[in-house]
Amino acid sequence: MSNSKPKIKVGLIGTGFMGKAHAFGFTNASRVFDLPVVAELDTVADINEAEARNAARAFGFTNATTDWRDIINDPEIGIVSITAPNALHKEMSLAAIAAGKHVYCEKPLAPLAQDAREMADAAEAAGIKTQVGFNYLCNPMLQLARAMIESGELGEIRGYRGLHAEDYMADASGPFTFRHDPAGGGALADLGSHALATAEFLLGPVTEVMGDCVTVIPNRKDRSGTVRAVEVDDIGRAFLRFENGASGSIEANWIATGRKMQHDFEVFGSKGALTFSQERFNELHFYSNDDAEGRQGFRRIEASPAHPPYGQFCVAPGHQIGFNDLKAIEVAGYLSAINDDAAEPFNFRAGLRIQTLVEDIQTSSAQQAWRKVGG
Amino acid sequence: MSNSKPKIKVGLIGTGFMGKAHAFGFTNASRVFDLPVVAELDTVADINEAEARNAARAFGFTNATTDWRDIINDPEIGIVSITAPNALHKEMSLAAIAAGKHVYCEKPLAPLAQDAREMADAAEAAGIKTQVGFNYLCNPMLQLARAMIESGELGEIRGYRGLHAEDYMADASGPFTFRHDPAGGGALADLGSHALATAEFLLGPVTEVMGDCVTVIPNRKDRSGTVRAVEVDDIGRAFLRFENGASGSIEANWIATGRKMQHDFEVFGSKGALTFSQERFNELHFYSNDDAEGRQGFRRIEASPAHPPYGQFCVAPGHQIGFNDLKAIEVAGYLSAINDDAAEPFNFRAGLRIQTLVEDIQTSSAQQAWRKVGG
Amino acid sequence: MSNSKPKIKVGLIGTGFMGKAHAFGFTNASRVFDLPVVAELDTVADINEAEARNAARAFGFTNATTDWRDIINDPEIGIVSITAPNALHKEMSLAAIAAGKHVYCEKPLAPLAQDAREMADAAEAAGIKTQVGFNYLCNPMLQLARAMIESGELGEIRGYRGLHAEDYMADASGPFTFRHDPAGGGALADLGSHALATAEFLLGPVTEVMGDCVTVIPNRKDRSGTVRAVEVDDIGRAFLRFENGASGSIEANWIATGRKMQHDFEVFGSKGALTFSQERFNELHFYSNDDAEGRQGFRRIEASPAHPPYGQFCVAPGHQIGFNDLKAIEVAGYLSAINDDAAEPFNFRAGLRIQTLVEDIQTSSAQQAWRKVGG
Amino acid sequence: MSNSKPKIKVGLIGTGFMGKAHAFGFTNASRVFDLPVVAELDTVADINEAEARNAARAFGFTNATTDWRDIINDPEIGIVSITAPNALHKEMSLAAIAAGKHVYCEKPLAPLAQDAREMADAAEAAGIKTQVGFNYLCNPMLQLARAMIESGELGEIRGYRGLHAEDYMADASGPFTFRHDPAGGGALADLGSHALATAEFLLGPVTEVMGDCVTVIPNRKDRSGTVRAVEVDDIGRAFLRFENGASGSIEANWIATGRKMQHDFEVFGSKGALTFSQERFNELHFYSNDDAEGRQGFRRIEASPAHPPYGQFCVAPGHQIGFNDLKAIEVAGYLSAINDDAAEPFNFRAGLRIQTLVEDIQTSSAQQAWRKVGG
Repeated sequence: MSNSKPKIKVGLIGTGFMGKAHAFGFTNASRVFDLPVVAELDTVADINEAEARNAARAFGFTNATTDWRDIINDPEIGIVSITAPNALHKEMSLAAIAAGKHVYCEKPLAPLAQDAREMADAAEAAGIKTQVGFNYLCNPMLQLARAMIESGELGEIRGYRGLHAEDYMADASGPFTFRHDPAGGGALADLGSHALATAEFLLGPVTEVMGDCVTVIPNRKDRSGTVRAVEVDDIGRAFLRFENGASGSIEANWIATGRKMQHDFEVFGSKGALTFSQERFNELHFYSNDDAEGRQGFRRIEASPAHPPYGQFCVAPGHQIGFNDLKAIEVAGYLSAINDDAAEPFNFRAGLRIQTLVEDIQTSSAQQAWRKVGG
Repeated sequence: MSNSKPKIKVGLIGTGFMGKAHAFGFTNASRVFDLPVVAELDTVADINEAEARNAARAFGFTNATTDWRDIINDPEIGIVSITAPNALHKEMSLAAIAAGKHVYCEKPLAPLAQDAREMADAAEAAGIKTQVGFNYLCNPMLQLARAMIESGELGEIRGYRGLHAEDYMADASGPFTFRHDPAGGGALADLGSHALATAEFLLGPVTEVMGDCVTVIPNRKDRSGTVRAVEVDDIGRAFLRFENGASGSIEANWIATGRKMQHDFEVFGSKGALTFSQERFNELHFYSNDDAEGRQGFRRIEASPAHPPYGQFCVAPGHQIGFNDLKAIEVAGYLSAINDDAAEPFNFRAGLRIQTLVEDIQTSSAQQAWRKVGG
Repeated sequence: MSNSKPKIKVGLIGTGFMGKAHAFGFTNASRVFDLPVVAELDTVADINEAEARNAARAFGFTNATTDWRDIINDPEIGIVSITAPNALHKEMSLAAIAAGKHVYCEKPLAPLAQDAREMADAAEAAGIKTQVGFNYLCNPMLQLARAMIESGELGEIRGYRGLHAEDYMADASGPFTFRHDPAGGGALADLGSHALATAEFLLGPVTEVMGDCVTVIPNRKDRSGTVRAVEVDDIGRAFLRFENGASGSIEANWIATGRKMQHDFEVFGSKGALTFSQERFNELHFYSNDDAEGRQGFRRIEASPAHPPYGQFCVAPGHQIGFNDLKAIEVAGYLSAINDDAAEPFNFRAGLRIQTLVEDIQTSSAQQAWRKVGG
Repeated sequence: MSNSKPKIKVGLIGTGFMGKAHAFGFTNASRVFDLPVVAELDTVADINEAEARNAARAFGFTNATTDWRDIINDPEIGIVSITAPNALHKEMSLAAIAAGKHVYCEKPLAPLAQDAREMADAAEAAGIKTQVGFNYLCNPMLQLARAMIESGELGEIRGYRGLHAEDYMADASGPFTFRHDPAGGGALADLGSHALATAEFLLGPVTEVMGDCVTVIPNRKDRSGTVRAVEVDDIGRAFLRFENGASGSIEANWIATGRKMQHDFEVFGSKGALTFSQERFNELHFYSNDDAEGRQGFRRIEASPAHPPYGQFCVAPGHQIGFNDLKAIEVAGYLSAINDDAAEPFNFRAGLRIQTLVEDIQTSSAQQAWRKVGG
């Protein structure tokens, strides 16, 4: 059956956790949504040949390569998906941009904001469309939360608490990895970036921060057995001021024993409140002052077709979408932007913004002083 | 890139809720799992030509047709997926079986057990592989629950409570539909079948039942405006005896206001207990007598790579899979069976079994007497 | 400071779990409520002299005795509180009634309904006021639930699920006790009585029952080491029909490993639903069809001064009352009835009613047939 | 019946929310616990004569007075309970101490730490026993949490999050009250004091703080209708450093729409974690790394006799204690201290400590700088 939609070929760099998620995202997006363009999985690159071949077969790519530059150099490829180690994001992105390709890069855009800025500037100058993978923002329940805040349903927003806690670094005998690299590493950069993205997604720009970054496990052995001092934060906290007048706080914590996905928030407004946990991300809890006396309480709203685009995945309420579905929504939004149907959901400029926030908090913590964002 | 795996072409009949779920299932299964065979989406059939064409495009089928027999008659197609109205399951399945094709049929296999039996017999005689879509059983947390029961981790199993409650029939002004047809309709058949499948999946065969089927909304208008008496149950309950000596109960309820997916169970053993709700299906709650005094309590186990095949979807714990992922697991199991790598996860014989249980409960209710299953 | 309220002296028989709860109830009721009569703790009886003396001192009684008849024979005593073993309830109650005293008897009123009937008849003939201790019904959140049902806030009531599960008999090596006595013993009598009382408290009279009583642990050693066959149920289930047209079910289970106080219910109406668990008895969860689309969900109502008589205990919401506070509410209601200010909250006739229901379910189970209540 | 225990007479100043709670506390403590001394409710003082008389009758005091100095001057009275407005705590306490009486004062000890210090010094110089009412610390589940932390069951303690949020000041049209007085007012002082007390109760001394106090509702009308500027915080946050090396944060918030009693904490250790909410204060959630792989999860421990002194209230698990029961435990601890059987649970020195912390956080916030506690 012929399909008259425009096609765009995708090249994927990296075959790990997020590489797989990107591949799923492209595949599912086209099945779930009636997208304006058809994304074709063309080439996957991995430095390890076997991994590249396996990934091509498993994820459905036509070609495999061990050299990511093959993707850049292929004139047929329109989108480059980058899920390689963070330290390579910049070089790869700039090469792809230079080749006129759209770039979909995993977070963080780069270890340092100055690099991210270069990337965002280059992308804009080239006029290509960019996307940074921020996973959780695509959730229909977060879209609902934002809509409720924007519409005034909660009244004046007064207070915010955000959180992203996991425990994958809780084991002190775990190795020193690239995530512990002083350039771009740490819990605030890795997890706090999500907490910050969600905070601004919901309430708008943060204007001032006061950071508190703490290293709890002072050293770790690297893979060669050498003991390395850890300089990055295991726990990163911040007080926040928002442009809308609200104040709040976030915490990032990667040694939060027992927590696997505690990406949570609470929003308190003058007329109502919301609470959310990524641990049960198909639910949003809503308290309304409008409920009758003696009948008030946080109500557990379950994701349903009333919360787009949930209905694209399932026509019945309460069935629940999964993490990979969030990625499909992210991809769908990006493809719409590529077709000029919508703004880029979370482009490099937005990714840079989060990096800037992270660094401002780190600087504030180091200087033990409040700091204007971007100041 | 060449792929040396055997290929099998899929024909899908029906493009609604479950048709989409089947299509997603085949697509995702091949992305998520390293399957022994490659399922290719070949032809989709819908009586409505536009629907068929749209589905082909959206779901990724090569061909569309308005005549399901085109699929049966296509010698290249190896698997027929049936998601047409229940009343057509038998005719379609028998035709597919006669053509030597594997058949994947949505539940219920047929409105009546006698038809389901004919289908199961035909399939076995033909030596083809069958699957009935029972969605929830593929959940890694249900697999975990069964493993814990089978290994004796809960001790002797003593009591069971099962439930499947939703509210899609709660509105008394809603129309009379095929689900209200005395042949095969009702809450027990529609939802109780799931509760029964889960009960036997976990505890093994039910041997005796005592049913209580209740019609709450006595009549509904059909689409022509004619008032029709409703004879099927809106709530179906049963007491159960299991072969393993345990007793239990289930309830099916499609007028359970506020409930969207209350497919729940509690299992009480001599050494521990489990509770589960499909409303939060990435969790299993476990109580162990072995915990120290003063430290005992139901613990919330979150789905993680320790619970196969969760890790196929995500290498990190707590990220959560969705309903469509359950369908992918179901498809993967079926394709393994087709390749003779594993037993059929839930074949027509198993589907017949559930139909038999449903009818025994209905008969028991009508006769107001306990009844041996299959007696 | 003089107190012009009428005084009434209380004699308490029994000093165990419920004896203490009664004593707390009388003491707290007078502190918490502005009661029309002052209850004075006069005499406490226990067959063990030291226990009696200790209890008198600890609970605040003026006198202690080892002969409960001292209480009956004391013309000054107006209320007799009976918390002795169930087998003695009848003799003690009839003696107290004959002496013209008000009687407050723990549940069950008597092991058998025929005895309970004699007690209720005697009490009514004597014109004294009676109360049976049913603890959970006094909860402000249950009062709220009933008010919501009665006012039509949930619409037509269609379905009910009740439960009372604990695990104090889960250990098969635990001794044979009076609770295993065929006359009046078993999970249905001990726990199911609560589930039935709550069911009728909320929905009104049950008219027909179908029982399923199961003995799971077939024998236990008594305190002398003799192995005794257990004839009573460890799990008791029932299907129910209510006079209001609704159907439902209850389960009583005293071998429910891990459960300590699972006295739960769900009520489904045409316009809304309620769920409740005694495990968190300061909360009632309410779903309303009237909530806006996309904003519907079960809301967690926390006990507050909007839910009388919570405000008597605490003027601020969310602070929570405890089990002993429930007993204080029960006592307060009884003292109001004694002063003719209100109907008896749960008198002997009501206690008899529950005994009758229990026995009808047991009979139904033994006969494997539906049974009209009181039929 | 004679009672050979020593008796001590109690004088209560104030008859409001906390006055009632104190009276309940004394009454219940003596019923629930086998205390070394008998507390007799002797005199209650309220500036309003009718209130005083009503309280005497309702709470069970022998005498009522409108002059609190009558209590101070009564040589028979041994304990003075102070629940008058905060501004009077100092004068009343000093007078009672001067008269050689034990003093039980509601929190805060005084609006300002310098006053609290004077009170603590005076009490120690006089050798009398003091207690500050901090309600939540007496909870058996908090005692359990502390025991688990102290015993090393959670390993090295690494992170802490504390919270006390309610919504009683969320209505911007609510009046300016004494709680808004710059001397001693604000959310941090009123609610944060609880969060800080719990933090130190669990983890030990806080050594450094960084505060963030925010006024959200800038002015309110006082009872005369005059618009008054609000200078105190509606939300008070702090980063914390503990002597044990852990870091953490707390938030106090009295405009947290929908929250009634969100006194919560999370403790993350190297071997396990705890979470708690006062909204369900009969539960403690515990995660242990020692649980088997695939079986790990936060387990909900319900209060039971394994968690002293729960068993004093109820011999069966899961029945739950209430807020007033917490006060009874507090009183019992104080009476034991008065009898020299135990250390004072939370004396004036401890109350001063909390005031100091509050003021250090306020100062830190005003100076926008980290601050050593007591520095």
